[in-house]
Amino acid sequence: MQAIVKTRRAPGGDLVSVPDPTPADDEVLIAVRAASVCGTDVHLWEWNEWAQNRVKRIPLILGHEVSGEVIKVGSRVKSLAVGDHVSAETHIADGTCFQCRTGKMHICENVQVLGVDHDGVFAEYAVLPEVNAWRNDPQLDPALASIQEPLGNAVHCLLPEDDIEELAGKNVLITGAGPIGLLAIVVAKTFGAAQVISTEVNPVRFDLARKMGADLVLNPQVEGAGLVQRIRDATGGHGVDVATEMSGHPSSLPLVFECLRPGGRVSLLGLFDGPVALDFAEAIIIRAARVHGIFGRRMFDTWYTVKGLLTHAGFREKMGQIITHRVPISEVGRGIELIRSSAAAKVSLYPKW
Amino acid sequence: MQAIVKTRRAPGGDLVSVPDPTPADDEVLIAVRAASVCGTDVHLWEWNEWAQNRVKRIPLILGHEVSGEVIKVGSRVKSLAVGDHVSAETHIADGTCFQCRTGKMHICENVQVLGVDHDGVFAEYAVLPEVNAWRNDPQLDPALASIQEPLGNAVHCLLPEDDIEELAGKNVLITGAGPIGLLAIVVAKTFGAAQVISTEVNPVRFDLARKMGADLVLNPQVEGAGLVQRIRDATGGHGVDVATEMSGHPSSLPLVFECLRPGGRVSLLGLFDGPVALDFAEAIIIRAARVHGIFGRRMFDTWYTVKGLLTHAGFREKMGQIITHRVPISEVGRGIELIRSSAAAKVSLYPKW
Amino acid sequence: MQAIVKTRRAPGGDLVSVPDPTPADDEVLIAVRAASVCGTDVHLWEWNEWAQNRVKRIPLILGHEVSGEVIKVGSRVKSLAVGDHVSAETHIADGTCFQCRTGKMHICENVQVLGVDHDGVFAEYAVLPEVNAWRNDPQLDPALASIQEPLGNAVHCLLPEDDIEELAGKNVLITGAGPIGLLAIVVAKTFGAAQVISTEVNPVRFDLARKMGADLVLNPQVEGAGLVQRIRDATGGHGVDVATEMSGHPSSLPLVFECLRPGGRVSLLGLFDGPVALDFAEAIIIRAARVHGIFGRRMFDTWYTVKGLLTHAGFREKMGQIITHRVPISEVGRGIELIRSSAAAKVSLYPKW
Amino acid sequence: MQAIVKTRRAPGGDLVSVPDPTPADDEVLIAVRAASVCGTDVHLWEWNEWAQNRVKRIPLILGHEVSGEVIKVGSRVKSLAVGDHVSAETHIADGTCFQCRTGKMHICENVQVLGVDHDGVFAEYAVLPEVNAWRNDPQLDPALASIQEPLGNAVHCLLPEDDIEELAGKNVLITGAGPIGLLAIVVAKTFGAAQVISTEVNPVRFDLARKMGADLVLNPQVEGAGLVQRIRDATGGHGVDVATEMSGHPSSLPLVFECLRPGGRVSLLGLFDGPVALDFAEAIIIRAARVHGIFGRRMFDTWYTVKGLLTHAGFREKMGQIITHRVPISEVGRGIELIRSSAAAKVSLYPKW
Repeated sequence: MQAIVKTRRAPGGDLVSVPDPTPADDEVLIAVRAASVCGTDVHLWEWNEWAQNRVKRIPLILGHEVSGEVIKVGSRVKSLAVGDHVSAETHIADGTCFQCRTGKMHICENVQVLGVDHDGVFAEYAVLPEVNAWRNDPQLDPALASIQEPLGNAVHCLLPEDDIEELAGKNVLITGAGPIGLLAIVVAKTFGAAQVISTEVNPVRFDLARKMGADLVLNPQVEGAGLVQRIRDATGGHGVDVATEMSGHPSSLPLVFECLRPGGRVSLLGLFDGPVALDFAEAIIIRAARVHGIFGRRMFDTWYTVKGLLTHAGFREKMGQIITHRVPISEVGRGIELIRSSAAAKVSLYPKW
Repeated sequence: MQAIVKTRRAPGGDLVSVPDPTPADDEVLIAVRAASVCGTDVHLWEWNEWAQNRVKRIPLILGHEVSGEVIKVGSRVKSLAVGDHVSAETHIADGTCFQCRTGKMHICENVQVLGVDHDGVFAEYAVLPEVNAWRNDPQLDPALASIQEPLGNAVHCLLPEDDIEELAGKNVLITGAGPIGLLAIVVAKTFGAAQVISTEVNPVRFDLARKMGADLVLNPQVEGAGLVQRIRDATGGHGVDVATEMSGHPSSLPLVFECLRPGGRVSLLGLFDGPVALDFAEAIIIRAARVHGIFGRRMFDTWYTVKGLLTHAGFREKMGQIITHRVPISEVGRGIELIRSSAAAKVSLYPKW
Repeated sequence: MQAIVKTRRAPGGDLVSVPDPTPADDEVLIAVRAASVCGTDVHLWEWNEWAQNRVKRIPLILGHEVSGEVIKVGSRVKSLAVGDHVSAETHIADGTCFQCRTGKMHICENVQVLGVDHDGVFAEYAVLPEVNAWRNDPQLDPALASIQEPLGNAVHCLLPEDDIEELAGKNVLITGAGPIGLLAIVVAKTFGAAQVISTEVNPVRFDLARKMGADLVLNPQVEGAGLVQRIRDATGGHGVDVATEMSGHPSSLPLVFECLRPGGRVSLLGLFDGPVALDFAEAIIIRAARVHGIFGRRMFDTWYTVKGLLTHAGFREKMGQIITHRVPISEVGRGIELIRSSAAAKVSLYPKW
Repeated sequence: MQAIVKTRRAPGGDLVSVPDPTPADDEVLIAVRAASVCGTDVHLWEWNEWAQNRVKRIPLILGHEVSGEVIKVGSRVKSLAVGDHVSAETHIADGTCFQCRTGKMHICENVQVLGVDHDGVFAEYAVLPEVNAWRNDPQLDPALASIQEPLGNAVHCLLPEDDIEELAGKNVLITGAGPIGLLAIVVAKTFGAAQVISTEVNPVRFDLARKMGADLVLNPQVEGAGLVQRIRDATGGHGVDVATEMSGHPSSLPLVFECLRPGGRVSLLGLFDGPVALDFAEAIIIRAARVHGIFGRRMFDTWYTVKGLLTHAGFREKMGQIITHRVPISEVGRGIELIRSSAAAKVSLYPKW
């Protein structure tokens, strides 16, 4: 089959012909119907320092966000059949560590990642462990189906404790309007957030934040030192109930706390480069704030919530707006350039070889 | 002022002139803008056995579902001002019992109820304790504002543990499509339920259940012995994830369990007359079911969730459909007849004297 | 090896010689160090109606409560090594159903049970799936190690929502003082219950309930109609905060609710024969009670709590008191008779062939 | 009556005669039986920058940790009677803000503090709002009864989500062994922690940490750069499940995260002077850590847990060890010196004038 492969420990990737994969006893083989580009793919393509340290296996088929059709099942597979439409949960857990034994397999101590530790999905076919293959409504647009992982990140950021009372009727701040931030806007509104406030500097994403339904979108470069006050004023001076940091920009870290109501909750998803200083006493302790570091999404509790959101036609329509570009999988390098140049929000890939 | 008063320990109520009420230090006085008729009002009007045992205070102004405008505040009131639009939480808690001290004041050991233990709201003016007056968006239709208590019941039934994962993407059974059951349908759909299944025998309410968005509405009298299988089939044989019993009909009690997935959750709201037999081993224990008795709604966590739902224009529109009749407060007896004759879902009352 | 085998679809079991078992890739082989007799074993031995319907596989090695030493590991086993001391979690889950995907594998839709669907542990050796083998402190007495499953039942009954606030400083009612009820007494006291009230009619168990630390032990046959009042009086008239029903006697069902504080919680573990009538409105709905059907124990959250309890020397000492008899595994039939005749609480088995 | 009063905006406090206080309708008057010195009292005595900014009211009777006997009750008080033994919850909430309306009154937006905003308890008599007076077992030693607030802090730090599974059978790190840290050690052991690791530099407190039951006590100055590895090694390389930071020393902040297991939980109680830099990506985000800022203790959920702990004779005995000195209330200045000189852990005060 054709696939996009990292063939050397160097930037880029190559379109090459490789043998068709064969599913093991507890795996399924899928024909890829859609894929999409994640920030991790960009790092691997660029071959930055993180990628150089992280990747152990070369050659490696790249890509992990995917939807497809099951065309073969291993001998011990019980929950899936040929013809099922599925998406992939990328985190392959060991099933026996403490986290896996206590309902937290998304943070398995020995997690392996599709497209990083195992061959990925920028290919004609791919294999997935049975438990990592999530069955979709067959009517669901494959392009939307392939972006359920970032949608799951957004849901997990907004609801790390699954408590709807923290969203419904509450004010939410989302710093950074990349694909996950944009999805978080529409998720928060769908679950009844009173007011969603978004911050973003990139003009393409600033406009998208409005289209996704944010009540107030602010450009930190325009607002300057008045940004905290602007946000607090929008909440009657109380501060937001929930804040999710999705920009990875160090200035957003004190911001999310300064804008937070006593007893409020912060989710941190954006990765900062290096240490950031924070007045913990004021920001967190006296404020009785709760903070969640977000990694992946709950397996598979979050996926059911995602499934519920996808039943709303209005939700799917809004969600689709984050796909600003569509390119063939074989030209994924072009998609990666669109992201690096800040021209794109989400790049969707379709199988044309 | 004019008010509808239970003047004697007998059926009915009278339109009489009474002195205007005066708020105490920690109370507010409101001008009534809308009210609505609850099942409790019907019992009080009929003066059934429950009412005869429950009511200690005669004369008593009837009614408790209300919205209005604050026209006077007591000297110690800090959180409300003249001109605020408010609705009432009917349960007046003592603030010092175990339940009140641990975030469960909706089940205060010494709870007093508006329109039962205290003078109610079928009047030109009413007094409310500050903490029981819930501030509304001033743009909210007063008629909708006055039915937030049953809406809160519906939310509390569906989310007694506040866990959105139990609704989003899940299948929900709601037995009985009275006003609270109808509201529960639209709440469940709004929070992303995959499929809402409703049962009802009354044709007016059967049709309303469809209009509220139920995916499947079944008449137990039509389905007969096949009802359980019909519901299980609709869920791929697994059973529903959540069931709420709102009919008070004894046949619905085994039903909600027989239709339930292992580990599923049941909320019981409808009051059965007398004991009901149940095979607890099969229904609850081996099934690892969770059961919640529902009384009132969380004070005031549920009200914030309600507030969030009311921010959706589509939600408000669907919700409004349960108001099948509007009559002046002074003619509440006519409204009660509409309910008793099964012609009405919710009867909304407006201030005309 | 020697084993106790159900060789025919009839009462009893036989001591026979069978081939030594071999672990599959994802299994371990253990040498049995201790076992114990569970009520399920009694049903299988008696070959009652439940057993006749439930058992599909004959011949079948009986028994499931066990501790032993790992003597061989399958090729894919990563978390265990030869020489580890382990106990068995008896429920073998499929890993892919809804419950397994959402942290509830103890109620897997396709659960298989050791000693019922798979060969059990009343033998010299036994195989366990890696994930079902729980590593013990090597210093732990094998007899205590083999009764962690009923201890886990007791913990799961007392803490189905894991909320320590429901036990610490609270009043707890435990109806029935069989092995799990007795263990529940010492668990509740260890976690700071203010007062544990136990009911029991069997004099051996009545005395043990006191020794385990119950503050008040009542014999329903002696107390008669005054039982509810007696328990309510002991709680200052408020009712208990938590009740766990472990007797399976129908009279205990209304009892646990009548003794319950508003907003209190009930766990049901004892299996009733046939339907029981209950006034749901008074018992559950108006009382805003929560009810949990208890099946097994959480995999493996509950096991960690059990592990913590076993670190207390005082806890282990009290817990050991429930072992009233010790017999060789080869004479398990004698142990079963001791239980049937109400002479024993827990019968511990040791490997002598 | 006699009282210790801050009479001027300057260091120290004076023993002066003031009028006996009178309880309002919703207050009780107590005769002080015991008090104790908190870090806040030390700041007020020293009149440091925080105190200068915080205190609005002079003259002010100092002190807030107290137990006493009710000698008079206001006309609306229902839950307390003359002769009751009570302790004070120091945080006086407004009852109507968002936090108070949703079960979080310990972080009321308009909180007032006894001994800071209201007259305190270093006096012969004191008034308490009814809801802030917590009824004790009359047999409880008044000195222990007066230190329930720091004990509540310890409990709230260890169990901010009330989930016993996070302590029982788990490894806990407690950095700093001041009074609250010392109490946290014995609380964690009582709730079944597998291993409690404590860090402390002060030799008096280092020894007390051992006496309270810590399994491993480490002096960061002695361990130096090897401290993290030492702690990780003690947990089999996995890291601790829960860490509570109680030292307020900046070096402990990265420490608690570096020692934490993926998905683990950190409570922050110690107040740092100024900002601290942290690598949030490694410390919190990729580790999927949860962080709780701790302020006060839950009102009054935590108090019930405290009550449960105090039922254990062994717990009370260990807890009593933190009282290293006893002085008359009239000589509180001497007690404050003992704390400032690091000679004392907890100083208990008794009423001698």
